[in-house]
Amino acid sequence: MSLTPDAAQALRRALATVVVVPVTPLHADGNPDWDTYGALTGRLIDGGIRVITPNGNTGEFYALSQAEARQAVETAAKASSGRAELLAGVGHDIPTAIEAARHAADHGVRMIMIHQPVHPYVSAEGWVDYHAAIASAVPDLGVVLYIRDERRTGARIAELADRAPNIVGVKYGVRDAAKFAAVARDAGLDRFTWLAGAAELTAPAYWASGAHGFTSGLANVHPGLALSMLDALRANDFGAAMNAWEKARRFEELRLADVSADNVSVVKEALAQLGLCRADVRPPSRPLPAGIKEEITGILAGWGLR
Amino acid sequence: MSLTPDAAQALRRALATVVVVPVTPLHADGNPDWDTYGALTGRLIDGGIRVITPNGNTGEFYALSQAEARQAVETAAKASSGRAELLAGVGHDIPTAIEAARHAADHGVRMIMIHQPVHPYVSAEGWVDYHAAIASAVPDLGVVLYIRDERRTGARIAELADRAPNIVGVKYGVRDAAKFAAVARDAGLDRFTWLAGAAELTAPAYWASGAHGFTSGLANVHPGLALSMLDALRANDFGAAMNAWEKARRFEELRLADVSADNVSVVKEALAQLGLCRADVRPPSRPLPAGIKEEITGILAGWGLR
Repeated sequence: MSLTPDAAQALRRALATVVVVPVTPLHADGNPDWDTYGALTGRLIDGGIRVITPNGNTGEFYALSQAEARQAVETAAKASSGRAELLAGVGHDIPTAIEAARHAADHGVRMIMIHQPVHPYVSAEGWVDYHAAIASAVPDLGVVLYIRDERRTGARIAELADRAPNIVGVKYGVRDAAKFAAVARDAGLDRFTWLAGAAELTAPAYWASGAHGFTSGLANVHPGLALSMLDALRANDFGAAMNAWEKARRFEELRLADVSADNVSVVKEALAQLGLCRADVRPPSRPLPAGIKEEITGILAGWGLR
Repeated sequence: MSLTPDAAQALRRALATVVVVPVTPLHADGNPDWDTYGALTGRLIDGGIRVITPNGNTGEFYALSQAEARQAVETAAKASSGRAELLAGVGHDIPTAIEAARHAADHGVRMIMIHQPVHPYVSAEGWVDYHAAIASAVPDLGVVLYIRDERRTGARIAELADRAPNIVGVKYGVRDAAKFAAVARDAGLDRFTWLAGAAELTAPAYWASGAHGFTSGLANVHPGLALSMLDALRANDFGAAMNAWEKARRFEELRLADVSADNVSVVKEALAQLGLCRADVRPPSRPLPAGIKEEITGILAGWGLR
């Protein structure tokens, strides 16, 4: 059964929002804390978030076993119970990605995000083949591409979508707004929902260039701030959007430092300071030094959260 | 049981050679052809190769399922039956890597190579923790680090080896001989066997800087050429080594083109032209265009292999 045009259109509309990548909270023994995962999912939805991506990079996807990744989807599905769209991250070798996509579908998930291949040798043709193989195996699911490599061209994305018409969105994570504008036009601006894939700090510029949503890790901590930026962008009020940008700035800069080494650690530390989960991360993330923790305290105070 | 100093020294000595990363041959249906995998392993050993790395990147590790990766180790172990050292590639999340290492040990393998983490957010401290967790879980195995990120410092490598004394080698894959020289000295030149991890084209310069071995994909096709370079380097004859370098050059340049997109495809195509296995690769690698195939024909003729 393939996605109908109406169903695809509904998914494209659903994606045009803040797409949150949730953390995977851990117990002191290092195992995932699924009760808290469920509670945080509920908190996001109560805070107004409508699309959630279990098994994204901020969820430490590559530090999870395949069994843990399946549990993340099941936990998110149970906690959201239809109140939000889930966009399940899948990756690794092709059969493993397809198995994960089918598992997600079995739990009511309607969309998957295909992580960029971790294989070190990626040809342009093979990139198309990899994604086409996964997307074609689950024709009834909406598929979102996650692009973090500037070598992927709009022409190749269009070629891929010709083979896999269930591709409904592209999370474009290259930090170059002009590159984004060109790739989106070459691939088809209206054919997909384009998401600013490097979160709040890129969202206004990408929105101006044709994006209709953005991904967010910050929203784990402060969904209202991400949503205020979304509201401003929808209202074409770039002044207000940039006010939200300034509020997000330092938090995101901490996450970006040292080639994003602390991407996850900063979010979990902030959640820990709010009493919402432990700060623990798995290697190769690291526990934060005291100076950064203190800076996070100040940011949370500035946001009025503590 | 931990590695004794004598056993560690024996492994360091064993590593000081051409370390071949074998391909994973496929059947027409896309499944691995284990009979041919075993035959190619035997051909390498008969050709004089003494260390083989099943589940390296040229083996399409990230396109294999975990079950297939285990089968690669078992097949290599059976085919080599003690005539060569196996260095099994392991990776993914920490428990998965440890499970793979233990599986390899159960099949008589004495060394593992830990792939660089595919996690997009790698902190310096977390990089140490990741490798220490895996290496410490298999203290009786020799461990080789695979470094492809220039941000990894010698000081962090030394810190890691203080925690995991079973680290016997470093495959340094950053293409910068001066960086290699500095990192190796900062980490401890005599503490590990240093391998030129970007193969033949970097081997003479890295050898001059303190490496005592190099990795090779080319040796899948022409083990004698790789070994002639090794012999020249061991004899301190850089003129002869650079003659071998010139013979390897164009083949390696084809493998390096477009950010190594065809790293595996070129090797498999050459093997196919020699009638040794099919040329098929898994995405995101690609089948080669006709022009490159023809060029490989010329290279094989120049090598006297057809």
